[in-house]
Amino acid sequence: MRTQVAIIGAGPAGLLLGQLLYQAGIDNVIFERQSADYVLGRIRAGVLEQVTVDLLEQAQAGERMRAEGLPHDGIELLFGGRRHRIDLHELTGGKRVMVYGQTEVTRDLMAARERAGLLTVYNAVDVTPLDFGGERPRVRYVKDGEQYELACDFIAGCDGFHGACRASIPEGSIRNYEKVYPFGWLGLLADVPPVSPELIYAHTERGFALCSQRSATRSRYYLQVPLTDKVENWSDEAFWDELRVRLDPEARAHLVTGASLEKSIAPLRSFVSEPMRFGRMFLAGDAAHIVPPTGAKGLNLAASDVGYLSRAFAQYYQERSSEGIDRYSEVSLRRVWKAERFSWWMTSLMHRFPEAGAFEHKMQEAELDYLVHSRAASTALAENYVGLAMD
Amino acid sequence: MRTQVAIIGAGPAGLLLGQLLYQAGIDNVIFERQSADYVLGRIRAGVLEQVTVDLLEQAQAGERMRAEGLPHDGIELLFGGRRHRIDLHELTGGKRVMVYGQTEVTRDLMAARERAGLLTVYNAVDVTPLDFGGERPRVRYVKDGEQYELACDFIAGCDGFHGACRASIPEGSIRNYEKVYPFGWLGLLADVPPVSPELIYAHTERGFALCSQRSATRSRYYLQVPLTDKVENWSDEAFWDELRVRLDPEARAHLVTGASLEKSIAPLRSFVSEPMRFGRMFLAGDAAHIVPPTGAKGLNLAASDVGYLSRAFAQYYQERSSEGIDRYSEVSLRRVWKAERFSWWMTSLMHRFPEAGAFEHKMQEAELDYLVHSRAASTALAENYVGLAMD
Repeated sequence: MRTQVAIIGAGPAGLLLGQLLYQAGIDNVIFERQSADYVLGRIRAGVLEQVTVDLLEQAQAGERMRAEGLPHDGIELLFGGRRHRIDLHELTGGKRVMVYGQTEVTRDLMAARERAGLLTVYNAVDVTPLDFGGERPRVRYVKDGEQYELACDFIAGCDGFHGACRASIPEGSIRNYEKVYPFGWLGLLADVPPVSPELIYAHTERGFALCSQRSATRSRYYLQVPLTDKVENWSDEAFWDELRVRLDPEARAHLVTGASLEKSIAPLRSFVSEPMRFGRMFLAGDAAHIVPPTGAKGLNLAASDVGYLSRAFAQYYQERSSEGIDRYSEVSLRRVWKAERFSWWMTSLMHRFPEAGAFEHKMQEAELDYLVHSRAASTALAENYVGLAMD
Repeated sequence: MRTQVAIIGAGPAGLLLGQLLYQAGIDNVIFERQSADYVLGRIRAGVLEQVTVDLLEQAQAGERMRAEGLPHDGIELLFGGRRHRIDLHELTGGKRVMVYGQTEVTRDLMAARERAGLLTVYNAVDVTPLDFGGERPRVRYVKDGEQYELACDFIAGCDGFHGACRASIPEGSIRNYEKVYPFGWLGLLADVPPVSPELIYAHTERGFALCSQRSATRSRYYLQVPLTDKVENWSDEAFWDELRVRLDPEARAHLVTGASLEKSIAPLRSFVSEPMRFGRMFLAGDAAHIVPPTGAKGLNLAASDVGYLSRAFAQYYQERSSEGIDRYSEVSLRRVWKAERFSWWMTSLMHRFPEAGAFEHKMQEAELDYLVHSRAASTALAENYVGLAMD
């Protein structure tokens, strides 16, 4: 058995890459150690940049998103007890973001893959990329107790932060950059209408809060909590009470609460692995980099990575040129570092840091005050939030 | 003896305030514990915002500045071995800064004060603001061995960070915010032509460097050094050698070196005292706040403080309204905090912090890369550098 590109990981990065390659006439197989249902059960991001929307359209997986997704023209920053709107659409000359859950993106990509009749090996055990330092890479895996190998031209490592791909690159060949933040996000998903039409990013003395949403009837809320907190200690009621305290009076009055569908605490991390290529293996998405969720860049960076990568493979197969694959890491990392900076900046600006003193708190307040009153500073936020253009 | 406003401190803040009050017909006396020559001997800032230029003109002390000052339309940021120009003039719709040394500003203000025949008491010993919590403030001082008192309506505390005014405010009535940076600036003044027509702010692995200037024949250079460094350990030659290493090849080739006229190490500090008023005493300039010198805001903030303060006093005497003096602290602090933020941000971006890790260094590089390639981000830098408008 052989294919052109073996993709490890059936999250949105792997699935989108598979569809983009398919559109370019490039054969591919995806290996996923979990079941499709498990993958769909992961609750993740929900804000898509225009770049991501365009790539989903290109992958012929944009139809439902176009119909059901909610275009957002702005976000709100809440601090000092008042909300200030950032008009993304006006500040960026017409760009916006699309609110559409990662679960839905994944579902649409799975459906598109099924329509295309492409192979996805779910529940693949011990998926191992092999010989990618040479000319003949292979992927070994176990399925239903039997061991198999697939020969390929390239391996795409789309298997996330804890996946096998980055871990299999020889020590010393990549350099990791990391920052771990001293707090987590307690997230709650509920079938209640969003408190406000647009997302609210709240900076308060009690910590950060985010009012996000997946649809007009499904809301996603987050609270900054200490890393030592346990999700068991947060009843739904305790969550709603704390969220209320962090909102402005108007939002507080409009907040509709309900039973949680999901509740979990996620740590916040910045992480980049350089370069994103080793021989014939190419890392994409969380396998290569993690951003803290503030600013919603994780899924979008995964999308632009596989956008660059699919372009590079297309150039290789269609034009017999290695230029794209040789430049993939450099080109992708340039965008990655900018999104890392934005996510780090927005995280630093909006959260309460346990080690920060009175001066640092004043710097946050002064920056927020400046930000919402300066067109230049608002535009800098907006252009990053809607997503920088792909080179 | 009595006056309307007793000004403590004959630095640029006190002198400028005196002239602005004089123009508004308000009587004032300045007390200074040093001699005029000592005050003129202090080597300080040299970049004036338009707001400062306008206030100096208003004070009838702008003639020589207009003739000899160097208007600068841009600055350069050096990182990754390359210089990138920030076009202040174009980005801010026609604003610029004026390079004109603080020593010259002080000299011009002293001359204007002399022309106006206003009293400045130099070499005043133990200058003490008294009873400013009540209706009848006084200033007590010793001159040539004799103790005197001056009755006044108001006291303006323009006596700097270590002065008597802030120190005399009752404990608990003001709150201080402070950040001390883990490095200093080693400055060197020399009668050599500047290495480049515009200022160069350099971010390097060996630390920050700044190529500044006072005129076409007098240059001021700075090197980030550890706080433990002693100026005695830096020969002129060692200074020039280290500066060369931190510059780009072109600047290195153009650098003209010469004997130092002055060489000193200054610590970097952010400091704000809130409020800037206690009873009938009003703090202005360094007496109320300190910025790290990156971004050249110190003298300019002192100027806008006394701009607000002179306006408030004029309103009091001419319109019998206390509104201006009642709002002085709030209005002034709003601009102060924005300049504090800008100075802190630019310091954080440009310096090498001993405690920073590889991720933090990458954030600096990514921000610099973003900054010079985004018009919005460049504009945000430019509008702060030329100075935000006075409310």
